[in-house]
Amino acid sequence: MRAAWLQDGVVRVRDDVAMPVPAEGEALIAVGLAGVCGTDLELLRGYAAFTGVPGHEFVGHVVDAPGASNWVGRRVVGEINVRCGTCRDCRAGRGNHCERRRVLGIRGLHGALAEHLILPVANLHALPEGVSDESAVFAEPLAAALAIQAQVAINRGDRVLVVGAGRLGQLIARTLRTTGCELQVVARHPRQRELLAACGVEHISEDDVAHAAYDVTIEASGAESGFALARWALRPRGTLVLKSTHHGDRAFDFAQLVVDEITLVGSRCGAFAPALHLLESGTIDPTPLVDGIHALDDTPAAFVQAARPGALKILVRPPLL
Amino acid sequence: MRAAWLQDGVVRVRDDVAMPVPAEGEALIAVGLAGVCGTDLELLRGYAAFTGVPGHEFVGHVVDAPGASNWVGRRVVGEINVRCGTCRDCRAGRGNHCERRRVLGIRGLHGALAEHLILPVANLHALPEGVSDESAVFAEPLAAALAIQAQVAINRGDRVLVVGAGRLGQLIARTLRTTGCELQVVARHPRQRELLAACGVEHISEDDVAHAAYDVTIEASGAESGFALARWALRPRGTLVLKSTHHGDRAFDFAQLVVDEITLVGSRCGAFAPALHLLESGTIDPTPLVDGIHALDDTPAAFVQAARPGALKILVRPPLL
Repeated sequence: MRAAWLQDGVVRVRDDVAMPVPAEGEALIAVGLAGVCGTDLELLRGYAAFTGVPGHEFVGHVVDAPGASNWVGRRVVGEINVRCGTCRDCRAGRGNHCERRRVLGIRGLHGALAEHLILPVANLHALPEGVSDESAVFAEPLAAALAIQAQVAINRGDRVLVVGAGRLGQLIARTLRTTGCELQVVARHPRQRELLAACGVEHISEDDVAHAAYDVTIEASGAESGFALARWALRPRGTLVLKSTHHGDRAFDFAQLVVDEITLVGSRCGAFAPALHLLESGTIDPTPLVDGIHALDDTPAAFVQAARPGALKILVRPPLL
Repeated sequence: MRAAWLQDGVVRVRDDVAMPVPAEGEALIAVGLAGVCGTDLELLRGYAAFTGVPGHEFVGHVVDAPGASNWVGRRVVGEINVRCGTCRDCRAGRGNHCERRRVLGIRGLHGALAEHLILPVANLHALPEGVSDESAVFAEPLAAALAIQAQVAINRGDRVLVVGAGRLGQLIARTLRTTGCELQVVARHPRQRELLAACGVEHISEDDVAHAAYDVTIEASGAESGFALARWALRPRGTLVLKSTHHGDRAFDFAQLVVDEITLVGSRCGAFAPALHLLESGTIDPTPLVDGIHALDDTPAAFVQAARPGALKILVRPPLL
C-alpha cells in the first residue's frame, strides 16, 4: 500500500509498504483523514527512534475485523496506545503506560499517514453522524488536552496561563474555557490570536505575563523559552503542566522547585470519550484550526508546513479506495 | 553576644554580634539547643547568599516579649518563616511563600546558632512539659517531613521509597511509617540502617531498588545520584517528592516526564502543630538521631561533623545564661 515512511530523520512516501493484515480482535481501517502533530515532528528529529509509518491522529472506516464483524463499515477514531492487558500497569488501570505497549505511529506500530492501519477493536470509538471527519480527526489531540483536567484540578476562578497557541495550545485553551477558570494564552502569531479571540479566550504577549501570578501554567509551546516562561509565571505552590514532548535534556534549578514548593506534572494522552462528547455537542469546534489538507503523496510538504512557526493543524487525506 | 557567623563560605564564632532587641510583637529568646541541618551546609556552599548567624532549628526560653509578656519564661520552638502578612501569598494562606519573608538563619534574619534570637510571638509554639529539649529541637525538620503528607496523598498499601537515610530521611521514614504505606528506605551507612530497623522501617541498598515499581518516591539524599534513583524507581503516573535544596542547575529529560506522566513535587516547610503532637504523644522519638552535642564555641567543628557522609543530627548548645 501507499504510506508515508519516516526513517533517519527523513519522511517520504512509499508505495511498497506491506498491506497490514488484521488478527482476531483487530480492525483493518481505511484512513479517511489524518493529522500531523508536534510529536511527529519530534520523531523526525530522532525522538523515540521510530522507523516506519508515522501518524496517530486519524478518522477512517473499518474494512475488516476478524471476529468482530459488527465493526465493519463503521466510521471510527482510535486510541493510540495498544496495551498488553496483563502487566502491572495494565492491571492497575494505566494501560497507556503498559511497558509492552505499542503506540500508533510512534512505537512498534505503523501509523495513520497511510492508506490503511490496524488497531485492536478495543481501541476504537464509532463516530456519531453529526461529527465531520475534519472535526473527528482532532479527537486524539483533544483527548490529550483534556488529560490536563483529569490530572490537575482546575476550578472556576483559578488563574491559568497556557504558553503556546499552536495546534495543541489552541485545543487546551478551548477545553480550559469550559472550566470557568481565568484563562490567558500566550500567542505569538496573529492568526493564533484571531482564533483565540474568535472563541472568547484572552490572548496576551510574552511581555504581558505577570510574574508568580498564576495558579496553574501549561507549557504547550514546545520551546525551552516557553518552559522558562511557564515557570516564571507560576505562583509558589502552583502547578506547571508539561504537555510537549521535547527531545533531550534540559538544565533546571531543582532547588527553586523545592523552595517555591512547585508541582510539575507531565501529561500525555487522554480518554477519547469526553473529547468525542465535546465534539458531538458542538461545545468545541476545532475545524477553524485546519491550516491545510494535503494528499498523502504530499506528506513531506505537510511536515514542512506543520513545522513552520505559527502553523496550526495540517491534515493529510489518503486517496479514496 | 556570642554567635556563629557564616560569611563567604566560612563559619566561625564571634562574640561581638549585636544583641538583638525585640520590637512590639516579637520575642527575645535565649537559645537552649540548636540543630545543624543540610540547608545550613548548603548555605556554606553559597546557597541563598546568606551572611550572618545561621541555624533555624532550636528550642529556647522567652526572656523578653514587648506587648506579649505572657510569653516570658515559656519554653518554645518557633516557625522559621516571618511573613509580612499583607501580600498576595500571605492573604492566600501561603505565608511560608511571602515574597518579603525573612527566614530564620537563612534569609534576612539572624538564626539560632547564637545565645539569643528574635522571632515574632506569632511564630512561637509553647512546649509541653513532657517534650525534652533534645526532642523539641527536631520540631522544625519533623514538620518539614510531615509536609510531604500535606502535599501528596499517601495511602495504606502505597509503595513508597525514600532515597537517603540521613537526618531528614530518618524523620521522613518515621512519619511515613504512620501512614500504613509499604515503605522502603535506601540507606548507605550501617548506623542509618540500625536506626531504621530499630523503629521498624525496612532498609534496602541501592542495588535492591526495583525499577518503575513505587507509587511515590522521595529524594532526601541531597545527591544527584539520589534524584536519578528516585526517578528510576518511580512507576508511570507516580509522584516524586523533592525534599533537598540542592544548589545549582541539573540536567533533566523533561520528555520522559511527559511520556511517563510523572508528577514532581517540591516540598519545603511544614506546620509545627502536628509535629509537636507526634513528639508529645511519643509516636516519634527522634532523639536516637542525635550524633553529638557541641558547645556554641565549637560550631565550626559541628558543621564539619554534620557534613560527614552518614552523619545524623548534630546539635549545638549555647552556654546557659
